[in-house]
Order: sequence, then structure tokens, then C-alpha cells
Amino acid sequence: MYVIGERINGMFKDVKKAIKGRDPEPIKQLAIDQMAAGASALDVNVGPAASDTLDAMLWLVDCIQQVSDAPLAIDTPKYDVMAEVLPKVKNTAIINSTKADEDALDKYCKLAVDNNASLVALTIDHSGVPNDADGRVMMAATILMKAMEAGLTPDRLFIDPIILPVNVAPKQPQNVLTALQQLTLLSDPPPHLVLGLSNVSQNCNRRELINRTYLAMAIGAGLDAAIMDPFDTELMETAVTAELLQEKMIYCGSFIEAVLSD
Amino acid sequence: MYVIGERINGMFKDVKKAIKGRDPEPIKQLAIDQMAAGASALDVNVGPAASDTLDAMLWLVDCIQQVSDAPLAIDTPKYDVMAEVLPKVKNTAIINSTKADEDALDKYCKLAVDNNASLVALTIDHSGVPNDADGRVMMAATILMKAMEAGLTPDRLFIDPIILPVNVAPKQPQNVLTALQQLTLLSDPPPHLVLGLSNVSQNCNRRELINRTYLAMAIGAGLDAAIMDPFDTELMETAVTAELLQEKMIYCGSFIEAVLSD
Repeated sequence: MYVIGERINGMFKDVKKAIKGRDPEPIKQLAIDQMAAGASALDVNVGPAASDTLDAMLWLVDCIQQVSDAPLAIDTPKYDVMAEVLPKVKNTAIINSTKADEDALDKYCKLAVDNNASLVALTIDHSGVPNDADGRVMMAATILMKAMEAGLTPDRLFIDPIILPVNVAPKQPQNVLTALQQLTLLSDPPPHLVLGLSNVSQNCNRRELINRTYLAMAIGAGLDAAIMDPFDTELMETAVTAELLQEKMIYCGSFIEAVLSD
Repeated sequence: MYVIGERINGMFKDVKKAIKGRDPEPIKQLAIDQMAAGASALDVNVGPAASDTLDAMLWLVDCIQQVSDAPLAIDTPKYDVMAEVLPKVKNTAIINSTKADEDALDKYCKLAVDNNASLVALTIDHSGVPNDADGRVMMAATILMKAMEAGLTPDRLFIDPIILPVNVAPKQPQNVLTALQQLTLLSDPPPHLVLGLSNVSQNCNRRELINRTYLAMAIGAGLDAAIMDPFDTELMETAVTAELLQEKMIYCGSFIEAVLSD
């Protein structure tokens, strides 16, 4: 499971405060702690914290790279910010994200190739998120085609079929599972399949229970990456166990500790 | 989720002791408590407790029916015992189980129809459990055909694609998920899909974690019934949440309590 730690995001109060005061310590600690908790990469999102997105993003990347060589998912909808920040990432960069409109795909696939970066592409375009599984799969096919045209191989492409909160869009969790099952057949090897997991439980009670239950269902359907909270121990244990049950590793008595301990 | 409570089984020490001493109280309490914990039906299995299987099974059924009108899954490989016990079940009876050999299917489908019972049919025959998903699906097609010939409708048929312990058969959990996905397309409406869940974690560490993670994955793939432990609260919460995520109910703030509270 490729876990992209979600915690360095200005929508969290501690991060927002650190960005505003340009206090590097909380950011460094979040980078260190998320990787220690089992993250494979770190999402970096200025969020609503700053109007000076570019400056704040460059500062965040610099803070993190002082203490970690983790792959960084640069998370901004602003193309110009993305283009400025990517060359500053020392290890692997992940562009998070592009929409599936053809002109956006052309632009972002080129940006990924030029920067030797990976790309998260969402199944949303000018008409919105498809209401069903088929619409997501059709958009994913367009994404894959554009990526291949640009020379971006499936191993560097993350398709995100977009999960919406279960309390406002109750049909979407099942539609996303159906889409994931089909997306695993899209190419051989298939692209990575990723979700912004926490969105499924936004404004719900029992968020952690909903998140980890849906994560297991989604992994069973083909998900192999998620932007999620690596500090949620039960969630991380669910990820490890689901992959054990898919024979991505062999059972041993300490299978959790083998993956999640330092 | 159709939860068939697994606890009245002579392989558990308390049940074994109660059967040997013909002490009805522990059996009655297990019946009451499993239904209160959210079970939909109760498995009844003499297990290794008694050589007099028929007498012990009749006694168990009588004990349970003194305190509960739950549907009973009569769990024995002995056809003669099954045929004697079924008429004694006052509410719905479930035959648990038949193998998929054609002569066994003929015999057990007739028994189900004659007793107005449901039938659990395993995807195993004289040559054993198929090693892959396709073999399970082919056997399930035979089961469904035989059931339809006998007049047993899909709503009274439970197909069990057989889960084996992940520590000894590491490919089988994924094969069963693939089989479940395909089995949902077998007929419209499809038969029920059931597993003896606890088997996936036999002799493993972290059994409850493995059980609930696999349950969520299997529900995502189409499972709608399981023989499992209703006293495992986190497992029951996983079942409820997975079905919420499939829109089998609508989210409300107390979605767990709405299903699992008395």
C-alpha cells in the first residue's frame, strides 16, 4: 500500500498556525512522524492557510526536505505554483492533481514528464464528477490514453476515481468500488489507483470506523494507494492486513510489526 | 448482512461441556445473547462433543427453541441427522451444508424443498476445493442449476466459496474475493453469498483484525451473509458500516446503534 500521509495540510489547525508564523518545527515533526508511522510519501498542501500559496509551498517543501527524503505529493490546483515547486523536490515528486479535461491532461502530463514526476489524475472534468462507475472508467481511459501519448508510464500515473462523503452522496462509495474493480483491467500493468480516503466520512460520526472499513473494501476492489492519516493506527493495521489477504506479503506471526515498526 | 451466529458449536469448550452434561442454560444464554448482539440466525453444530450426533443435535435445537424463534442453521455433514432434525425446526431452517457433487446436490436440494428450508452449498466436490476463482464459479453454476431444477429459488440458496486460512493458503483469500465478484452476476436475483469467516484466520495472530478486514473486503466484493461471531463488537460494527457504504441503509449519526442496539 502506497500511503501518502495527509497531515501536512493547512486545513489542520497546527499546520495552519505553523505556516502563518513560518515555524518550521511542527512541519518537520509531522514529516518525521508520518514516515515513522508507515507513510510512503507526504502530501504537501498549503490549504486555506495562506494567500501567498507559492511562497508557503516552497517553505513547506524546504522544511520537510531538511529532515526527510520522502517523496512529496505537491497538492495544489494552481498550475503555476506546481510548475515552480516541482524542480525544488529532491526525491520523487507527485503532482496532486489534474482534472480529466483534455487540455488539462495535456498540460499536466507534459509537466510530469518534464520533471520526472508522477501524476495524480482525478476523474472529474468541466461537467463534474460522474454519477456512476462507467463515467469514471471512461474518464480514466481518457487519462490513461493522454498519459501514454505524453510518455508517462502507468507506474507513474495515479488515477483517483473520487470518493464523496457517504452522508451526502450515498451511492458513490459503491460506484467507486465498481469503478476500481474495472480500473484494474484498464492496462497491464494497470495505473496506480488512489483515493483521498478521509473524504468518505466528512462530517460523519464514527469517522475512523468508516475510513478503515471503506479502505478494506477499496483495497479488495483494487486500490493500491491512498492519501490518508498514517497516525490512525487501526487504519494502518487495516491497510497492512488487507494487503496480507491479497498475498502482497506472506503471513508471519508478527506481520503487523514487520511492516509498521521502525 | 445476514449474520449466522457461530457460537453454538461443540468445538467451543463451554458448548462442549453443556452438551456432554445436557445442561441447557449455557445453550439458551448463547442463543439469547447472540440474537441480542445482532445475529440474524444461529448455527447449531454438535462438533466433536458427542458421538450421538442426532440426539445431541435434537437436544440443542430444543434448548434454543425454548428461548428463541431464530432461524437455525443445522450444521452437520450427516445427511440422516439433517433429515431427522429439519422437521423439528419451528422457524426457518437452513441446511448447512452440502458439497457440490451432483448426487449430493440432488439429495440436498430435494431435502430443502421438502422441508421448506434454505440451503448452504459449498464449492467443494470429490476433487476438493478449487485452487482458483474460476473453479469456484463453475461449481457455483452447477449448484445454481441443480437448485433451480429442484425448485429451490436463489433467495433460499447460500453459496459458500470456502475461505481457507491465510497462513496456509495465502492465495485463497484473493481468489475468493474474485469469485464473489463474479458470483454476484450468476443470476438475477443472485443467490446469497456466505462464508465461514473465522476460518480465514485459523491459528493466526491478530485473528479479530484479520476477520474484520477480510469481512469488509468480502462485503465489498458481494458477500451478503457470514457465519461469524456476533460477540465480536468491532466485527459487527464493520459489517454494519460496510453495508452503509453499499447504500443498504442511509447514513444517520447513530447508524451503528440503529442496527446493533436492542
